[in-house]
Amino acid sequence: MNVDVVPAIAELRERLSPRRRTGSIGFVPTMGALHEGHARLIDRARSECATVVVSIFVNPLQFDRPDDLANYPKTLDADLDLCRAHGVDMVFAPSAPELYPQPPLCTVRVERLADHLCGRYRPGHFAGVATVVLKLLAIVQPDRAYFGEKDAQQLAIVERLVADFNLPVEIVPVPTVRAADGLAISSRNQHLDARGRALAPALYRALQKADRQIAAGESNVASIVAAAAQEVPRADDVRLEYLEVVDPAELQPVRSVGGPVRVAGALWIGRTRLIDNILSTPPSKK
Amino acid sequence: MNVDVVPAIAELRERLSPRRRTGSIGFVPTMGALHEGHARLIDRARSECATVVVSIFVNPLQFDRPDDLANYPKTLDADLDLCRAHGVDMVFAPSAPELYPQPPLCTVRVERLADHLCGRYRPGHFAGVATVVLKLLAIVQPDRAYFGEKDAQQLAIVERLVADFNLPVEIVPVPTVRAADGLAISSRNQHLDARGRALAPALYRALQKADRQIAAGESNVASIVAAAAQEVPRADDVRLEYLEVVDPAELQPVRSVGGPVRVAGALWIGRTRLIDNILSTPPSKK
Repeated sequence: MNVDVVPAIAELRERLSPRRRTGSIGFVPTMGALHEGHARLIDRARSECATVVVSIFVNPLQFDRPDDLANYPKTLDADLDLCRAHGVDMVFAPSAPELYPQPPLCTVRVERLADHLCGRYRPGHFAGVATVVLKLLAIVQPDRAYFGEKDAQQLAIVERLVADFNLPVEIVPVPTVRAADGLAISSRNQHLDARGRALAPALYRALQKADRQIAAGESNVASIVAAAAQEVPRADDVRLEYLEVVDPAELQPVRSVGGPVRVAGALWIGRTRLIDNILSTPPSKK
Repeated sequence: MNVDVVPAIAELRERLSPRRRTGSIGFVPTMGALHEGHARLIDRARSECATVVVSIFVNPLQFDRPDDLANYPKTLDADLDLCRAHGVDMVFAPSAPELYPQPPLCTVRVERLADHLCGRYRPGHFAGVATVVLKLLAIVQPDRAYFGEKDAQQLAIVERLVADFNLPVEIVPVPTVRAADGLAISSRNQHLDARGRALAPALYRALQKADRQIAAGESNVASIVAAAAQEVPRADDVRLEYLEVVDPAELQPVRSVGGPVRVAGALWIGRTRLIDNILSTPPSKK
């Protein structure tokens, strides 16, 4: 079994054209450093589409810190092995000049949805994400595109991007994959040393604690968050960047839980930033 | 000969789908009030494409003045007659709620290209244009889309939109259609009374005067513009909003003409605003 690596937009379009006429195209956009979470996206695409395309592109437009861009893990050979093993038909791996031959003057503006959670701490990040996703969707023209629920804010923004611009694609959300101790699988986990890895599941424990309170009928967000944050260990190199409760559609903070909410957090361990979230539902009212 | 009027996105897509498989689709986006200029766009599409789609939608997002939106001419029956006479296959005429079921949170941000010419006087206008063009292109998915050169700034922005977002469509520019006295054909001309109509060709005369100077080797933009502006008659209700000389690609003002330039102006006659432009080329250097 082989996987074709295509670096050029024109060639990708040419090779997809006959496949498009005979069956559906599934698309999994990634920044490489593929892991079990990506494999789950690919498997889902594989089960639903005649052709599966994975893109590997570390998008400079969405990095707010140059060191984060420079340090982003690059593991192309292993990525291709994973794609091969999971039956991917084509890997689109463009260079930065192929995707940005000139500085873009037209980009996506994202309002409201990027004001809180990660968006508040990463200025321009989600505009960069939305812009590259729009470009990739226009290049691949898939019938379905697959995104992980771990990046809930990204997923909500991509869903709104598709709705607002009438893009002819179905966005398929895929549940977060977790390690046995609850840690969400992420490319950034590999930056953790053994101690950091042992501390990391605290983020998910905090989310679970918030979820249990909400499920038990607690509606006061300030007290939910205060109790949940106690799950985070006190240490010089551990910092909870945010822990927020927002409405799932437009990601605006709520003060009182009156329906399903997204509970999301970002945790720094040393120089590594981890994010996670869950959808939490209060008990139905009598 | 008949023309199908389709108000719903889903129905349009469904009806275009079989046509897409057998031949190319040409698209002419309009705000209605169709005239000879639109007819030229349609004829060009008709000569190049198996299916021709015209959209009629007065896009609220691109109006910076509520009275301009309220007064924009609406002539649907005559528009359909023109479409029928010119062999249009389908007219997409959505309502505002069909295209904007909710206020968009993702829109197109346009940098640089909207800083001068009309963009300077119509804040948000070109972001609104770029947003609706992106939506319409995603809905119709044409092989080619046709735009008039009369709206040169709009055309340059649409070309950049397509390049920056890798949209799979060819943008075809179509030359401006003029009355015998040089006035560019425009939907707004019908707001002019007899006296206004007699004054209106002054804008094109000013552009021609600039063009003659440039062709004769004059390179100083300040003196070109000062001489050209003298073509505009002095009257209480006549006002030259701008007359600018810009580079044709990114529409930035030039001080000295050293290659092809776009000369563009906007002229108010009473409450009617007219725009026009020409591409002007200096004599080649020995």
